[in-house]
Amino acid sequence: MNDLSTFPVIVNQVIAWGDMDAYQHVNNAMYFRYFESSRMAYFTKMGFIRARTADLDVGPILAHTACTFLKPLVHPDRVEVGCKIAKIGNTSFVMEHAIISPKLGLVAKGEGVVVCFDFNKNHKIAVPDDMRKRIQEIEGRSF
Amino acid sequence: MNDLSTFPVIVNQVIAWGDMDAYQHVNNAMYFRYFESSRMAYFTKMGFIRARTADLDVGPILAHTACTFLKPLVHPDRVEVGCKIAKIGNTSFVMEHAIISPKLGLVAKGEGVVVCFDFNKNHKIAVPDDMRKRIQEIEGRSF
Amino acid sequence: MNDLSTFPVIVNQVIAWGDMDAYQHVNNAMYFRYFESSRMAYFTKMGFIRARTADLDVGPILAHTACTFLKPLVHPDRVEVGCKIAKIGNTSFVMEHAIISPKLGLVAKGEGVVVCFDFNKNHKIAVPDDMRKRIQEIEGRSF
Amino acid sequence: MNDLSTFPVIVNQVIAWGDMDAYQHVNNAMYFRYFESSRMAYFTKMGFIRARTADLDVGPILAHTACTFLKPLVHPDRVEVGCKIAKIGNTSFVMEHAIISPKLGLVAKGEGVVVCFDFNKNHKIAVPDDMRKRIQEIEGRSF
Repeated sequence: MNDLSTFPVIVNQVIAWGDMDAYQHVNNAMYFRYFESSRMAYFTKMGFIRARTADLDVGPILAHTACTFLKPLVHPDRVEVGCKIAKIGNTSFVMEHAIISPKLGLVAKGEGVVVCFDFNKNHKIAVPDDMRKRIQEIEGRSF
Repeated sequence: MNDLSTFPVIVNQVIAWGDMDAYQHVNNAMYFRYFESSRMAYFTKMGFIRARTADLDVGPILAHTACTFLKPLVHPDRVEVGCKIAKIGNTSFVMEHAIISPKLGLVAKGEGVVVCFDFNKNHKIAVPDDMRKRIQEIEGRSF
Repeated sequence: MNDLSTFPVIVNQVIAWGDMDAYQHVNNAMYFRYFESSRMAYFTKMGFIRARTADLDVGPILAHTACTFLKPLVHPDRVEVGCKIAKIGNTSFVMEHAIISPKLGLVAKGEGVVVCFDFNKNHKIAVPDDMRKRIQEIEGRSF
Repeated sequence: MNDLSTFPVIVNQVIAWGDMDAYQHVNNAMYFRYFESSRMAYFTKMGFIRARTADLDVGPILAHTACTFLKPLVHPDRVEVGCKIAKIGNTSFVMEHAIISPKLGLVAKGEGVVVCFDFNKNHKIAVPDDMRKRIQEIEGRSF
C-alpha cells in the first residue's frame, strides 16, 4: 500500500519532536493518538458525536484497538493518517487505519472496534439504520 | 481473571487526573503507556535493555500491540499492570498484559510482539539462547 | 530545600520510561503533569472540585503556571511532588510546587495561579469565605 | 497582540481531540508541548541541535518555562505558535512564545529560558559568538 486512496477520511499529522521517546523515534502510544485523530475526523463526518440530551445519550466506545509498526517515525516528518470502516456488525463496526510518510511510505497500520453505546441504559445498542446509511455513503459501497 | 498470579512482572500504576480525556475516562493511548511501563519492567528483569557498544547494538523493537478495553478507568484509582511472555518465536516473543483495578476487576487486556533487532546490521536476529533461558526462569516454565 | 515538610499535600509519582523524550530524560511538559496531579490532590482535599448543578457551576481555572528545572529526571526513579497554597488573593490563589527525588534531592520547583470561576456567568468570582477557611486549615496558618 | 508579526519562527499546530482533558478543553501541559515544537523549530533554524562528537557535546537545556492561559482552546481548532528570542545573556537566552487561534485571537503566551550546556564538562558555557550572530540575523536586530 503506497497511498490512502481507499480511505475516505485522511488527516494530516505533523510529527512533533515531543512525540519521540528515549529511543529517539515516535513512541508507540502516539500512533494511537494519531489513529484517534483520524477516528474523530471520521466520527465528525458521520455525525456520530456523543450527544447528551435529557432523553438520549448515545455515543461510540472504543472496545479494541491494535497497531502494527512497520518503520520507525522520526521528527521532523509529516504523515497522512487514513481511516475507513471495513465492516459493520450488529452493535459495532470495525475501523482500519494506515499511516503514510511521504519519505518512508507505509509506516503503520491498525484497526479499532467501535461499539454503539447507550450511556443512559448502560448497554450496547444496534448500529442505527441512518448510521449504516451514512457509513455506506462515506465508504461509497454497501456492506 | 481476577488476579495477576500468572504474571511474573506487575507494576503499580496510579491513574493521574491528566490521563483522562474529554470523555472523562482514561484515554485509550494511556493504556499503551501503562503496558509499556510493565514491558520496560520486564525488560529490566530480563536484562534486555538496548546496549550500544562499539561492536554491538542489539535491542527490542515493538512490532505490534493491541488492547481490549473492558471497563472504563476513572481518576482517582490505582491499578496493577501485569506482563508475561506467552510465546517465544524464532526472532520475536509475545507479551501479554492485563490491567486490574481493585474496585473494578479486570479493566483491560492486551499483547505486544517484540522483535530482537540488531541496530548495527539493521535486521532481526534470532532470540539469543541466554535470553530464552532467562525468560523461562522468569516465567517458571519451559517453552 | 531537602524535604517537603512545609507542603501539606504530597503525591508520589513513579517516573515512567515513557515520560522521557529523545534527550533521554523526563520531558518538560511531564513536570506540569506531575504538578497537576498534586494540584488535583489539593483540590480534592479542599473539596474544590468543579460541581455542576442546575443553579451553580463554579470551579478552578489555571491561569498561569511555571517550572524551574534544576536537575534532569531519568527513569527509573520515583519522586514526591509537593503542593501548597502560598497566597490567597481576591479572586485567585497561588500554589507552589516542589519535586524531590530521593537520590537527586530537589529537581524542580514551580507555581500555579488558580482563579475561582463561575462558568454559568462566565466571569471570575471572589474566593468564597468557606474556601479561605478550608485553605487556612490545610496550611495550618492564617493568610 | 492579534498577530505574530514580531515572531521570526511560527509553527502551525492542529489541536487534536486527544489534547483535551476531562475539563473538555486543551490540557495545560499540552501548551508546553506546543511551545516545545516552536522552540525546536527555532533551534533548527539556528542550527542549535545538540551534536555529539568525540570531542564536543554542546546543546540547549531548558532551565525555566512558564505559560499564561488567556482563553481555553477546544478541538477542533488550529493555532499558530510563535517563538522569538527576546534577550541574550551570558550563558543563556530567553525565548518568548505566543499562541494565536484564528477564531479566538491570542489564547496563551509564555517564555522559556534556555541555557547553553557542555554535556562533556557538565557545566554551562557562554553563548558562542556565532550563535549570537545567528540569533541577531534571525531576529533582525542587534542585542
